[in-house]
Amino acid sequence: MSYKKVDEKDVAFFKSICGEERVFFGKEINEDFGRDELAEERVMPEVLVEPSSTEEVSGIMRYANENNIPVTPRGQGTGLVGGAVAIHGGIMLNMSRMNQILEIDEDNLTLTVEPGVLLMEISKFVEEHDLFYPPDPGEKSATIAGNINTNAGGMRAVKYGVTRDFVRGLEVVLPNGEVLEIGGKVVKNSSGYSLKDLIVGSEGTLGIVTKAILKLLPLPKKAISLLVPFPNLELAIETVPKIIKSKSTPTAVEFMVRDTIIAAEEFLGKKFPDNSADAYLLLTFDGNSKEEVERAYEGVAHICLEAGALDVYISETQERQEAIWSARGAFLEAIKASTTQIDECDVVVPRNHVAKFIRYTNELQKEFDIRIRSFGHAGDGNLHVYILRDELTQEVWKEKLNAVMDCMYSRAKELNGQVSGEHGIGIAKKAYLSESLGATPLAIMAGIKASFDPRGILNPGKVC
Amino acid sequence: MSYKKVDEKDVAFFKSICGEERVFFGKEINEDFGRDELAEERVMPEVLVEPSSTEEVSGIMRYANENNIPVTPRGQGTGLVGGAVAIHGGIMLNMSRMNQILEIDEDNLTLTVEPGVLLMEISKFVEEHDLFYPPDPGEKSATIAGNINTNAGGMRAVKYGVTRDFVRGLEVVLPNGEVLEIGGKVVKNSSGYSLKDLIVGSEGTLGIVTKAILKLLPLPKKAISLLVPFPNLELAIETVPKIIKSKSTPTAVEFMVRDTIIAAEEFLGKKFPDNSADAYLLLTFDGNSKEEVERAYEGVAHICLEAGALDVYISETQERQEAIWSARGAFLEAIKASTTQIDECDVVVPRNHVAKFIRYTNELQKEFDIRIRSFGHAGDGNLHVYILRDELTQEVWKEKLNAVMDCMYSRAKELNGQVSGEHGIGIAKKAYLSESLGATPLAIMAGIKASFDPRGILNPGKVC
Repeated sequence: MSYKKVDEKDVAFFKSICGEERVFFGKEINEDFGRDELAEERVMPEVLVEPSSTEEVSGIMRYANENNIPVTPRGQGTGLVGGAVAIHGGIMLNMSRMNQILEIDEDNLTLTVEPGVLLMEISKFVEEHDLFYPPDPGEKSATIAGNINTNAGGMRAVKYGVTRDFVRGLEVVLPNGEVLEIGGKVVKNSSGYSLKDLIVGSEGTLGIVTKAILKLLPLPKKAISLLVPFPNLELAIETVPKIIKSKSTPTAVEFMVRDTIIAAEEFLGKKFPDNSADAYLLLTFDGNSKEEVERAYEGVAHICLEAGALDVYISETQERQEAIWSARGAFLEAIKASTTQIDECDVVVPRNHVAKFIRYTNELQKEFDIRIRSFGHAGDGNLHVYILRDELTQEVWKEKLNAVMDCMYSRAKELNGQVSGEHGIGIAKKAYLSESLGATPLAIMAGIKASFDPRGILNPGKVC
Repeated sequence: MSYKKVDEKDVAFFKSICGEERVFFGKEINEDFGRDELAEERVMPEVLVEPSSTEEVSGIMRYANENNIPVTPRGQGTGLVGGAVAIHGGIMLNMSRMNQILEIDEDNLTLTVEPGVLLMEISKFVEEHDLFYPPDPGEKSATIAGNINTNAGGMRAVKYGVTRDFVRGLEVVLPNGEVLEIGGKVVKNSSGYSLKDLIVGSEGTLGIVTKAILKLLPLPKKAISLLVPFPNLELAIETVPKIIKSKSTPTAVEFMVRDTIIAAEEFLGKKFPDNSADAYLLLTFDGNSKEEVERAYEGVAHICLEAGALDVYISETQERQEAIWSARGAFLEAIKASTTQIDECDVVVPRNHVAKFIRYTNELQKEFDIRIRSFGHAGDGNLHVYILRDELTQEVWKEKLNAVMDCMYSRAKELNGQVSGEHGIGIAKKAYLSESLGATPLAIMAGIKASFDPRGILNPGKVC
């Protein structure tokens, strides 16, 4: 693809739309906007624009489309696969300035927000109204539109589902500047192909989300966490299908190993309740009364002990639970801080294959003599596996990383898994998506992309 | 579109694939295959083929695509909008012979089924395993693939969501005969655009579902229904947002009026527990203990009485609940049997606008001097409104029907509603979809259709 370069005339136009102080050209752009949280790609946009309304986004898109300038939307840049890196330069739209909570509707149990509202702001706001937005990815400072664009899942997917399940309606600016309202406050919808479900998970390649109507639930009145130490990780993970089979539904089931906990303790400067065992399951149960929650977790505690757990620690107070879950939320940062560079694999496999996959990563660790750390969502089969560079030279690192990644994605496919559970494809995982899905689905996806974006100006080079 | 007519040579080919006894040509085809449950369209396919495997479906599609013959897939023909009527003739694929339950996986809580398995067979089968498939449309003799293709919602969408939310993976035969596996047993998936969510609700226009992996839940141990009489329908429906706001989540909230109950009593030859009031709400609550369920419904019973309910009847036994819910399931048939012809409107509006919409249909009833009956899902805003022909001449019926439908779809749009909550668009609602969505979404949908079906042979003329 060849695109027009941004020039002074274009910049003047953007300033006429958004105001002088919201347009940054060339050297004025902070270098943070040239990368995301993890992906290796580092490319600066030619111009950074910070729109404050749908009309502004629409005006910029119309202009970009007419003038063949690529546009990359970006939230807080917390992505891990380069989805928000402007690999073709052009315009970057910083959507994080559109950050208002617009409406809470208690009759319809919906929340209407602008794209740049942060996940942590949403949970705080709705909980003050005794309501609940269940999706709970580890990165609380991500924007809601970022979560929508990757269909983020988070910890509570075991019981509640993923972001897709909580998006009722969207306002989207198409690549040509047209504004579409998709879905709405309605609970059901069978009115043509589900464009809403196409936009969710499309990584900003089909349209720019400028408003979202989210589904809320009543806030569960009680939540309890169980921290369950096991002598080893395999034993811990093999217990999860037994828990699911027991027909008790935990809100979350996370797994972690001692190394990761110690890294998090060092990173946060805070002690975790226990770090004496090799591996842990962390479970939450929620409900509307103490008795209901107790009934749910008692059977599960018994299953864990039967399966060889060393103990079961129950955290009832909010303080104690926050201590555990904030450590869990810091795992990625802690692993990052413990080495020179990392890359990640975010595969999802059926829950009963998680133990097999983890065993395989342990084998790879030995075979390639490279550190691999993993944690993640044992309850829904979504693993976050990190490969650590440590002191490897660039050449050796690249070689080992590619070999390990190839092995892991092949193994995930053998286990009927998918390339990404929640972090998306972006630029970093395109080759693996292509290998995993094959030519036909990718050709269909390319056709869908062309239906939304015939000139190919919106976040080009991503996903497919 | 101009298609090739089916000839003896084609028929011989289909017989070579499926066997003599599974191919019916011309006059051999039962006239049921020329229509669905309600839509006015009546067109016979040229050939009816009953495949018994994915390979057979694939072989037929490849041939049809190469020879430019249109194909219409059909389940049990319980649709209401003509989605399974072969309006261009050609091949009809009767998918209801592929009706095996293939696997129940208790580790991953999934059920794998062929497309022709009936909804009532699924619920019976999984309940024997103490598991639960929540989607619960009134028509229990529909096939699962029919439900997937319309994204049917049913009664329990208030608490559990719609069919889309319970489809984890699909095997789909594309128009060119290629077989795609989409999704799988995985709980999360962010691996490119969600083709799974495009197929769900696509009314057999993008691909033919030959296998589905469904998500199951543990079976709630206890369910209780409340039948709540009100002096009038408006009062009943206005109570629903108050119930939702109270943060108690019923499994289902249905509304009904005395006329419909009496029609169902006559149709079934069975008494409903009460028919003395003008209007009723029917609610269900489920949970894992009597106490949990009682706690949930007690507050709601109080809200109903405060809002002017005449009484609250509690049905605890399964027998009594089945008596009520089987009457509810017979409403459509009962209304059909009470007149000469009916047509329906399946709009969905935000829950707090249901009362406004029902008030409007009452006004239309008077204004156009025509009988209108409605029942439906008060808890999720999805209305089933039926216009009854009674003794009107064809000419007057058409005229009044069109005028009333125009009014209702306009009003639904004003209330931020959508054309179809769960019955789909088919052929009967195309004009209303076009008016409701506008040109751009339809053009995008047409582009999507072309990406899957470039030659336009699969269920042509439907949806968009």
